[in-house]
Amino acid sequence: MIKVGIVGYGTIGKRVADAVAMQKDMKLTGVTAHSYSFNTEVANEKGYKIFTVGDDGDLKLNGIKPAGDINNLLEEVDIIVDATPKKVGKENIEKYYKPKKVKAIIQGGEKHETTGTSFVAQCNYDEALNKDFVRIVSCNTTGLCRTLHALNKFDITSVHATLIRRGADPGDIRHGPINAVVPVLEMPSHHGPDVRSVLPKCQIFTTALSVPSTLMHVHTVIADVKKKVNVDDVIDALSSATRIRIVRNAEHLRSTAEIIEFARDLGRQRGDMPEICVWKEAIGAVSNGYNKLLYMQAVHQESDVVPENIDCIRAMTGFKDGQKSIEMTNKSFGIK
Amino acid sequence: MIKVGIVGYGTIGKRVADAVAMQKDMKLTGVTAHSYSFNTEVANEKGYKIFTVGDDGDLKLNGIKPAGDINNLLEEVDIIVDATPKKVGKENIEKYYKPKKVKAIIQGGEKHETTGTSFVAQCNYDEALNKDFVRIVSCNTTGLCRTLHALNKFDITSVHATLIRRGADPGDIRHGPINAVVPVLEMPSHHGPDVRSVLPKCQIFTTALSVPSTLMHVHTVIADVKKKVNVDDVIDALSSATRIRIVRNAEHLRSTAEIIEFARDLGRQRGDMPEICVWKEAIGAVSNGYNKLLYMQAVHQESDVVPENIDCIRAMTGFKDGQKSIEMTNKSFGIK
Repeated sequence: MIKVGIVGYGTIGKRVADAVAMQKDMKLTGVTAHSYSFNTEVANEKGYKIFTVGDDGDLKLNGIKPAGDINNLLEEVDIIVDATPKKVGKENIEKYYKPKKVKAIIQGGEKHETTGTSFVAQCNYDEALNKDFVRIVSCNTTGLCRTLHALNKFDITSVHATLIRRGADPGDIRHGPINAVVPVLEMPSHHGPDVRSVLPKCQIFTTALSVPSTLMHVHTVIADVKKKVNVDDVIDALSSATRIRIVRNAEHLRSTAEIIEFARDLGRQRGDMPEICVWKEAIGAVSNGYNKLLYMQAVHQESDVVPENIDCIRAMTGFKDGQKSIEMTNKSFGIK
Repeated sequence: MIKVGIVGYGTIGKRVADAVAMQKDMKLTGVTAHSYSFNTEVANEKGYKIFTVGDDGDLKLNGIKPAGDINNLLEEVDIIVDATPKKVGKENIEKYYKPKKVKAIIQGGEKHETTGTSFVAQCNYDEALNKDFVRIVSCNTTGLCRTLHALNKFDITSVHATLIRRGADPGDIRHGPINAVVPVLEMPSHHGPDVRSVLPKCQIFTTALSVPSTLMHVHTVIADVKKKVNVDDVIDALSSATRIRIVRNAEHLRSTAEIIEFARDLGRQRGDMPEICVWKEAIGAVSNGYNKLLYMQAVHQESDVVPENIDCIRAMTGFKDGQKSIEMTNKSFGIK
């Protein structure tokens, strides 16, 4: 049993905790809390051990009995999944994980250079084998890597993607925009270079905008490819890859809202959709002197990286068969 | 004096009416109303003659005294600007304008085939000269035509644009989405072919999505060009064209919301921004074996076609100097 601790129990941390608890080869040792909230309350109700970071007065006042502090957690685990806010992951490596000699996974808010290894299971599982520190790339980068990796059988020469990003997560009451489209005024947006941290040969250029929606990101992607392709080839390539779902206008999955409603109806925990959803009717292929692919995909920012964290735990703790790990993880999520 | 009547007094019609009233060489003969609303009330307060379409009971009940019906209006005008909802413009040509031998402009909701001539002043003014029926293209198509026409000095070979469309206009309480990104599930979206109704040689492919915002559309555009270009060349080409404004992160015009706030501060009527706004920091140029241009632009869906309607009136009534017409119109709007 791989003993796993979660540091940072927010959007990603709480999902990874539940996913670890579902794996037959893993044990959730505990999660951290730096203050009291409904997140801590739910963790407590689920029977997860809670370890404090900093002052524990707030927790005790609210009837939570901590199992110890973060140092106690580190003594009991094989690996930490750090899902703290941007930049804290890097600090925690220096402050906690290196001194305590504990392996750790950090998330996509951190820089590639912090670990030297960035991870998307179906693209580069082997690179994470037995590593001490690995970074899971962001939700957007994960989404781009999954589909571009599947489509690289057509020899992609260059990619341009526009990322229409949800402005804030559903539970976020602080951020916007409420009524604006906000372009990322840097060219390219950081997502393009970030894809290359997993797919180093991918020539990709990205532009990004934020919009007033909370549910999912949407990407429009154009790829120049060497091989002649048609729409059915693209559908086949995407369908046969893992963690990608073809959704259809015909089944009334015409928007991010309907995809998330579908996930809720499927009984997915928290209404999550960890698969990247590609709209069948928005897949295009042009062979007109040059060969181009076009598609649109929706990315559930809260959950697509969760299975990646699980596979990365296995890789870093020495489980060599990436394909098998992906199958085990998928089975626990009920995805293909 | 060109005598102009407005049929359909909604988002576009009311703006064109005000713009006609501002022109020294035009006279606003009157506007139509098919029912009472604040639009009619404002037209009445401005002293515009109101002509009924159908039953006038509703207007009279509310104290509006019609100057006659649509047939009376048609007898007094040289030209009609028809800004009725989609498909009604085409019906009105057959029902009213052809039988009465009145010239008419219809809007972008109608098909190109209805008139055979589609119009963007700075691209093809001469095509509308002395025509009986001309179509002004939609707000999105107008936006794409203006910038692509200006950039065609670099010999554009192909264009891909993603249109992030506002879900509904500011005063629209019926349409959505409220919280979703909704792709247009047809490939290409109709905008690409529509650009070719004005720029027939432009090889353009468009994808489109609707988002929960009311203020402006945003386009991300990639163009393959024959000539080697740099960012300054692109800025120069756009700056020297009419009805295009370069906006900058540096002046805090970072989003559609700030652009519209800027228009309000400028004292623009209704807070309109008829110029296409291109973000300086989002202009890119790549010369890497091939030459590519990239840019992002914001399009004010309520107003960018209004100056086009004014120039089209002049062209159709025989004013030959397109450049001069554009200057006269721009001066009245306070734009360059």
